[in-house]
Amino acid sequence: MKQSQMLIPTLKEVPADAEIKSHQLLVRAGYIRQIASGIYSFLPIGRRVLRKVEDIVREEMEKIGAHEMMMAALQPSELWKESGRWSTYGPELMRLHDRHEREFALGATHEEVITSIVRDEVKSYKRLPLKVFQIQNKFRDEKRPRFGLLRGREFLMKDAYSFNESFESLDESYNQMFQAYSAIFKRLGLNFRAVIADSGQMGGKDTHEFMVLSDVGEDVIAYSDTSDYAANIEMAEVVMTYEKSQDAPKQMEKVSTPDQKTMQDVADYLGHGLEAGLKSIMFKVDDRYVMVITRGDHEVNDIKLKNLYSADIVELASEERTKELLGTGFGSLGPVGVGEEIEVVADHAVEALVNVSCGANEAGYHFVNVTPEKDFKVNQYADLRFIKEGDPSPDGQGHIQFARGIEVGHVFKLGTFYAENMNANYLDDQGKAQTMVMGSYGIGVSRTVAAIVEQYNDERGITWPAHIAPFQVHLLSLNPKKEEQKQLADQLYDQLKSAGIEVLYDDRKERAGVKFADSDLFGIPLRLTVGKRAGEGIVEMKERASGEQSEVDQSEVLSTVSEWFRQ
Amino acid sequence: MKQSQMLIPTLKEVPADAEIKSHQLLVRAGYIRQIASGIYSFLPIGRRVLRKVEDIVREEMEKIGAHEMMMAALQPSELWKESGRWSTYGPELMRLHDRHEREFALGATHEEVITSIVRDEVKSYKRLPLKVFQIQNKFRDEKRPRFGLLRGREFLMKDAYSFNESFESLDESYNQMFQAYSAIFKRLGLNFRAVIADSGQMGGKDTHEFMVLSDVGEDVIAYSDTSDYAANIEMAEVVMTYEKSQDAPKQMEKVSTPDQKTMQDVADYLGHGLEAGLKSIMFKVDDRYVMVITRGDHEVNDIKLKNLYSADIVELASEERTKELLGTGFGSLGPVGVGEEIEVVADHAVEALVNVSCGANEAGYHFVNVTPEKDFKVNQYADLRFIKEGDPSPDGQGHIQFARGIEVGHVFKLGTFYAENMNANYLDDQGKAQTMVMGSYGIGVSRTVAAIVEQYNDERGITWPAHIAPFQVHLLSLNPKKEEQKQLADQLYDQLKSAGIEVLYDDRKERAGVKFADSDLFGIPLRLTVGKRAGEGIVEMKERASGEQSEVDQSEVLSTVSEWFRQ
Repeated sequence: MKQSQMLIPTLKEVPADAEIKSHQLLVRAGYIRQIASGIYSFLPIGRRVLRKVEDIVREEMEKIGAHEMMMAALQPSELWKESGRWSTYGPELMRLHDRHEREFALGATHEEVITSIVRDEVKSYKRLPLKVFQIQNKFRDEKRPRFGLLRGREFLMKDAYSFNESFESLDESYNQMFQAYSAIFKRLGLNFRAVIADSGQMGGKDTHEFMVLSDVGEDVIAYSDTSDYAANIEMAEVVMTYEKSQDAPKQMEKVSTPDQKTMQDVADYLGHGLEAGLKSIMFKVDDRYVMVITRGDHEVNDIKLKNLYSADIVELASEERTKELLGTGFGSLGPVGVGEEIEVVADHAVEALVNVSCGANEAGYHFVNVTPEKDFKVNQYADLRFIKEGDPSPDGQGHIQFARGIEVGHVFKLGTFYAENMNANYLDDQGKAQTMVMGSYGIGVSRTVAAIVEQYNDERGITWPAHIAPFQVHLLSLNPKKEEQKQLADQLYDQLKSAGIEVLYDDRKERAGVKFADSDLFGIPLRLTVGKRAGEGIVEMKERASGEQSEVDQSEVLSTVSEWFRQ
Repeated sequence: MKQSQMLIPTLKEVPADAEIKSHQLLVRAGYIRQIASGIYSFLPIGRRVLRKVEDIVREEMEKIGAHEMMMAALQPSELWKESGRWSTYGPELMRLHDRHEREFALGATHEEVITSIVRDEVKSYKRLPLKVFQIQNKFRDEKRPRFGLLRGREFLMKDAYSFNESFESLDESYNQMFQAYSAIFKRLGLNFRAVIADSGQMGGKDTHEFMVLSDVGEDVIAYSDTSDYAANIEMAEVVMTYEKSQDAPKQMEKVSTPDQKTMQDVADYLGHGLEAGLKSIMFKVDDRYVMVITRGDHEVNDIKLKNLYSADIVELASEERTKELLGTGFGSLGPVGVGEEIEVVADHAVEALVNVSCGANEAGYHFVNVTPEKDFKVNQYADLRFIKEGDPSPDGQGHIQFARGIEVGHVFKLGTFYAENMNANYLDDQGKAQTMVMGSYGIGVSRTVAAIVEQYNDERGITWPAHIAPFQVHLLSLNPKKEEQKQLADQLYDQLKSAGIEVLYDDRKERAGVKFADSDLFGIPLRLTVGKRAGEGIVEMKERASGEQSEVDQSEVLSTVSEWFRQ
């Protein structure tokens, strides 16, 4: 394509609202433009990259026997009322009325639509399992759209669904999808982890998020420094054996701790480390009040608390209610002397402690030389804290490290949630009606483009992996007014194009500096420059990523370029 | 693909709401399913057909140097207010609010978005002309969605836009698009006409609609039986020379025509043909009142009236207002004695008449022996009637015939409407600011799929053109329980697939009759049946469209199939 005829507007300045690299570079290099907060147009070179990512996703989906469909974005509210999500989805779901005042949702996801189709059309176990996917714009009205393509309100997504006859069959589809996702992100050249995630409120079972490692990621991943293990920090189990202290338990004593507000204040005042104090926090778990005890240097993980109680809602108790229950506010809580109406649960680490301090349920006082079970009762010990860097990996291999990640994919065992709510049944081989078992699997296609840029850039621009770049070769004619340059460049352009190589040809009448800067911004893997030595038939070739440079005779350009891409 | 694992639900019965062939067959054969009125999901084989049409459209767009983009469906209302269309578009434009109560439109078309991008990013004549396109779902809230994919509310469209530095340059882009559209519809195997159309209220100049000829079309096309000429019936010029009657004008007389209501009643009562009476109709043309006179056997074309006056609004005058102006209602109007405040315009045919009848502006009375210019004054003669079958073609070649058409494409010279309203300017080679000149070009991709089916079907199902069909070969194993059938079919499936042939493999455990019926419904061009003679290695091959049948030895299947597609 000739650059003079293509809409690729580049910017020298970093756009004011662009905080992260991918946002800055995709805008500056003319891949995308914002039309409203969180809503982007893909300009021609952006569309090309998107299509390459799409094609890889499509290929891997088809390899595992998923078939492409295209469902509509407009979804009648009736379907969302059947699943129950019309009332639970919240303001992220964009809603509208048609001219007859019928309510619609703009597709944020398509579980309802596909379930209604499959329930109407598939009646027999013989047609199961079934895997379908689509690649299509989705709509979610994010409260704070930001980071360019990373958190948008309209974005390109691949969503897939499996319908299975049993949980065993679901496991199989899930594993196929898991493998396909791994293959996709590998082919995209991404440094990623498949991360154990929270199955949330959809009532599903297993779920993994595919996270691209990046400092700008909004999620924290706990991963093993030795094995493949990785989990969302909220989900990472702590599997430590704490060695019980050998100290003889002393007599508990109440001491004054005037004006000491934080755990650290108290520990300093009492002259011990954080780990020798108990942290006591009051939670409301559905309708009951629970005091959670951890070691002072540990943080309570409320997702684990929620899972322990299979609760719907877990929240901090209000200070007011806490005062009513315990006679004191947040600063001096402790498990000693707490009444039967409050359950005390403690993290496993607490069980190993002897002679530690804790709040005395009286403002300005703590107990010291407190020992669990001797001085207070614990209803249950459980894994209740966040994992920490350096903790042993739950799979027994290596130790935990933290990284930030951008979620680009999600595989999810939905189970029977939708099928039950929407009556998706089939007849088994005995002619008996059974509920279908479902999985859902998403990839944020446009977000993935941004994630690639986060991992492939340098101070001058984007450095695309070769097969994702909008073009393979960027051909520059430095001074197209000079006939010999124009002629050689035109000739190379035709030659490379005919050989099936994707070439962007900068035929613009611009200064060389502008052309080089634009070229670096775009990030096309190979640059061929036709300049002063055009008369001798000499072309400069430069690798965008490595910066490696060489001179090539015009007769060898095609073979050199072809060879480079073969490698 | 194996049919047992694909979502292709077929129906024996014609769906109750499906009035036309394409709607019936696409639903019955499992290509589409409706999710709400005018909103469809494309099931896997429907998606495949759609993609093939998309690919042809894309190729032809790229050939003329148009570059693909992807704009968002969510469009801020501000842009539509700039163009003025927020208030003029009407209820077809679907509107919604985001969580911050900002107004958005769902893209019915993208002139506003692309104009805003180009105005911000393109400043110089050096970057013009520019041609971009996208393929994407559009939203139009039709009052009465019907005919399946022909008139939907969410549908796949290719929209393209050109930005030019002058009207001459626009002509060039327009012609390129025109040629590309012709190539596309030809490649799709469609019997179509490029039809001169009405440029409507957008203030554009030339416009053509691409119409697929079909009895279910909603538009009437007037075309020449000899040449390429074709126009929307509203736009077809009448270029006839009417020979002036040689009869001597007689004395006008007023006669009683009691209880004669219609033109035909009056003509019968007076004993002459329809063509010997004048039809007189009162119109309101913007703010003035105009009486339009045509021959009794002709029909007034109000689009021509509108164009004659360059009017914004043309409508029938109310009967009440007509009575005020002329002292009588609609049944007895005529041009004789009409006051100065009413303009009388007449179709060219009227000029040739002598001694005809017309209403006397008095209930129950007509004049006879009326002759134009002698008995009444005509302000202007013009082409004001609809063309009729048999009229000479306006290009001077052959005669006019009528046909119905489905509009599948539209090319449109927008001119400066959007550029002026939205301030899209560029600097010319003298550094002077100029308004950009635009064109817009659409193809209804999903509607085109339906149009193909309207032209390619028989009593048993669809008969796709070979390169549009969802698969090239439909391979049937009649009784997969029989090992020799299964084995041969499996082997052929692998062999054809490896050779790059798209095969749908009916491996289902269903009766042969069901398989044949489904196969005919689908319309895949070649069917290979592995049945009773599998043991001898004999396969039956049948062409879907012609019904031609032959037996092929398994060793020759691949070469025979490949040869068939080469031809």
